[in-house]
Amino acid sequence: MEKTSTFYSDYGIVKRIFLIAILLSFLVSLSAQQEDAKFVKRIFDQALTEGDCYEWLRHLTKDVGPRLAGSPGADAAVHSMRRLMDTLGFDTVYLQPCTVPRWDRGAPASGRIVNNAMIGTRPLAVVSLGNTIGTGPEGITAPIVEVQSLEEVEELGRPGVAGRIVFFNRPMDPTRLNTFAAYGGAVDQRGFGLIVAARYGAKAVLVRSMTTGNDDVPHTGGVALIDTVPKIPALSVSTNDANLLSSLLGNGEVRVHLQSNGRILPPVPSYNVIGEIRGTSHPEEIILVGGHLDSWDIGEGAHDDGAGVVHSLQVFPLLKQLGYRPQRTFRCVLFMNEENGLAGGRAYWEASNAAKEFHLAAIESDRGGFTPRGFSAQGREDVFTDYFSRVNEWLPILEPYGLMFTTGGSGADISGLKSQGGLLLGFIPDSQRYFDFHHTAADVFEVVNKRELELGAASITSLVYLIDKYGLR
Amino acid sequence: MEKTSTFYSDYGIVKRIFLIAILLSFLVSLSAQQEDAKFVKRIFDQALTEGDCYEWLRHLTKDVGPRLAGSPGADAAVHSMRRLMDTLGFDTVYLQPCTVPRWDRGAPASGRIVNNAMIGTRPLAVVSLGNTIGTGPEGITAPIVEVQSLEEVEELGRPGVAGRIVFFNRPMDPTRLNTFAAYGGAVDQRGFGLIVAARYGAKAVLVRSMTTGNDDVPHTGGVALIDTVPKIPALSVSTNDANLLSSLLGNGEVRVHLQSNGRILPPVPSYNVIGEIRGTSHPEEIILVGGHLDSWDIGEGAHDDGAGVVHSLQVFPLLKQLGYRPQRTFRCVLFMNEENGLAGGRAYWEASNAAKEFHLAAIESDRGGFTPRGFSAQGREDVFTDYFSRVNEWLPILEPYGLMFTTGGSGADISGLKSQGGLLLGFIPDSQRYFDFHHTAADVFEVVNKRELELGAASITSLVYLIDKYGLR
Repeated sequence: MEKTSTFYSDYGIVKRIFLIAILLSFLVSLSAQQEDAKFVKRIFDQALTEGDCYEWLRHLTKDVGPRLAGSPGADAAVHSMRRLMDTLGFDTVYLQPCTVPRWDRGAPASGRIVNNAMIGTRPLAVVSLGNTIGTGPEGITAPIVEVQSLEEVEELGRPGVAGRIVFFNRPMDPTRLNTFAAYGGAVDQRGFGLIVAARYGAKAVLVRSMTTGNDDVPHTGGVALIDTVPKIPALSVSTNDANLLSSLLGNGEVRVHLQSNGRILPPVPSYNVIGEIRGTSHPEEIILVGGHLDSWDIGEGAHDDGAGVVHSLQVFPLLKQLGYRPQRTFRCVLFMNEENGLAGGRAYWEASNAAKEFHLAAIESDRGGFTPRGFSAQGREDVFTDYFSRVNEWLPILEPYGLMFTTGGSGADISGLKSQGGLLLGFIPDSQRYFDFHHTAADVFEVVNKRELELGAASITSLVYLIDKYGLR
Repeated sequence: MEKTSTFYSDYGIVKRIFLIAILLSFLVSLSAQQEDAKFVKRIFDQALTEGDCYEWLRHLTKDVGPRLAGSPGADAAVHSMRRLMDTLGFDTVYLQPCTVPRWDRGAPASGRIVNNAMIGTRPLAVVSLGNTIGTGPEGITAPIVEVQSLEEVEELGRPGVAGRIVFFNRPMDPTRLNTFAAYGGAVDQRGFGLIVAARYGAKAVLVRSMTTGNDDVPHTGGVALIDTVPKIPALSVSTNDANLLSSLLGNGEVRVHLQSNGRILPPVPSYNVIGEIRGTSHPEEIILVGGHLDSWDIGEGAHDDGAGVVHSLQVFPLLKQLGYRPQRTFRCVLFMNEENGLAGGRAYWEASNAAKEFHLAAIESDRGGFTPRGFSAQGREDVFTDYFSRVNEWLPILEPYGLMFTTGGSGADISGLKSQGGLLLGFIPDSQRYFDFHHTAADVFEVVNKRELELGAASITSLVYLIDKYGLR
């Protein structure tokens, strides 16, 4: 009885100690969570009151302007952003060389419907697609053949395509709430339409602009080229004019004249711009935040991807202003040539993989400067599930700011880091307005909202803070 | 033994029947939920592909234009929206009379800093506040006294205030993520500043514009007046100029000249515009969706509240196009005079309360046409908790569209329906850009995004569908 009593008494003490330990660890974790919530609030407050990203964006879009890889604008952007980074308190700021394709749009393209039985001659809102050759000064006049898919071109084959202008007209699906999903469902026409059409002897390609709206703004963008098919001109046409062409085709042949002036020039050297602060206790674990510094040449690249550039630049200054020194190595990377070659991204990950670096996390911001909604995450299969549950543990801290995590693509520039076994994240802002501006002359500073931009920078900084403080394992 | 066995056997059968019943009811509810999710998807698809609200907004803002209550613009809006409602398939469309205050801004106001020791004479971006009298043609010149609150005016009293222009300069807090909360924390200065300042003999009132941004755009808005204090002129000044005035005050006296031309005119008759479709099985339960038809006179009232008007107009056509006939009575109400009197809202709820009507739910859209985030809900204390849990049961259907429910204010025009014991809801879109436009000349059609507007209409329609189908009890 005594023994039993001692046993129970010992057991009781052990149990009590155990319970107290659980309670303590719960309280510690609760208080850590409260502390983190407070720090994240300070990050947001700081971004909204003392953030610099909006003025940096004004500089990048208005003083530097368009900055297609290989152009003087891109050079100016590299040097201007390097100078800016030099003022932000990094340990090291450096340029990482890469070789970028060089493409020159030349004089603006033009297009018109020619002598149509229904409406006579009428101008079309067109723009050359990137990396494409021009039509020559006289232009091309040919009947158009409308298709909804690459497969349809294959079905038509040479008899239906040779000597014609292939008109790709499958719209982005407006019912997709995520407009990037709608983009993904249509952009194959722009990316690969030229190759398929050229293979069967098309004279040129005309692609419906990548937007859900009906408007008069043509959208440029990259096309893929391969050596085994001839290069032919490719242009995009506004959605309103695409609708017009399609409806005219219901009444008979439609002949279109296109004149464009693109030139493919020899590759030139360019650079990624990188700022780094070495981690105090885990310097071997890198946290990267990046956007791409190049832009298309017909706007100011404000949402695409000026926003991502200034988001990335803003992270370390915010942490610094709040007295937080990263334990892990933080790198801000402004990638060159995402739009028409990905040379910068490739140079970065090839160097990093060769040096056996480990990116614990890489976050790309390349979906515009709109109100934050969260992050999409991906990673190597063997580690991803653990990482994904880890970041989701932080939801109580991040949800009040409208942030959540989804699985999905992160960013083109960081995709080659996947094999390192870290977590790749893409910043997701609200996507409803993005394709009003994407790759158009309308993507200018004025269409970026200051608060929305600052909230994006704060969201990314908050996630960097949590990853830096707790790691992912 | 047999008995017991029979008992257990009976019990076993009962238990099995019970479990099957639970399973069936679970399956039925699951399949109902799947059916509802499908219908809600159809509502969104329909709004995004066949929605009319954007073109209606173009008409209201561009053809009708500004429509301050009592103005010819408001009359035109009433008749134009009535004609539009006549085409939407309602059982009944009618005008509900109300008597609205009439205020005329007159020629644009002007302001300047006069002979300042630091910067000499310099123009100020000002605008008259609504319902205020003018300064007379010569204007008023007086030193300004800066305050941060109504209390500060009380503390200064007559010695500090008499003969001066009281300059209310407490900013909206930019760190509030919900910009309406920031607005709520500052707008007392505009609403009640005149009364407090006039009581102590101020010559005029100058109020910092209600926005978190620093820009050159002055924001108008309503002020409260009471018979026991003299009417004095009140203007708002852009945030950039408010900052300038405040910084100049650090260096000594600042004298300001203000000239404004407002006139308070006798009240005139006006109308709410109402469309109704009688419920098939519960006609005595009313579901209202409304926005306010009047707007301030210096913009086009596109977000405030053209968006709410066309959201409300869109609900019934969407349901009708999808073959859904409401079981409960649906009413679309376009309220008059929300901005400077609330005469329309008051006329509506007084008539409704007198007729002992029961509004099961009333939803107001008066926070702009941005990407939907959810609904705020309020109601009579004895019923609210039940209603609130009921609507939250629909989250699995609504969350995929970014919608959630919060507790909070619904809308000024429907606030007087609370005593009926139904649920009052306010549509909540993303609030980051709203105060860039609110009550300014910049609130025009072009700053409303088509998809964001359509998503708002679809969100409200989806909630109406669920409330109509299931009730709230």
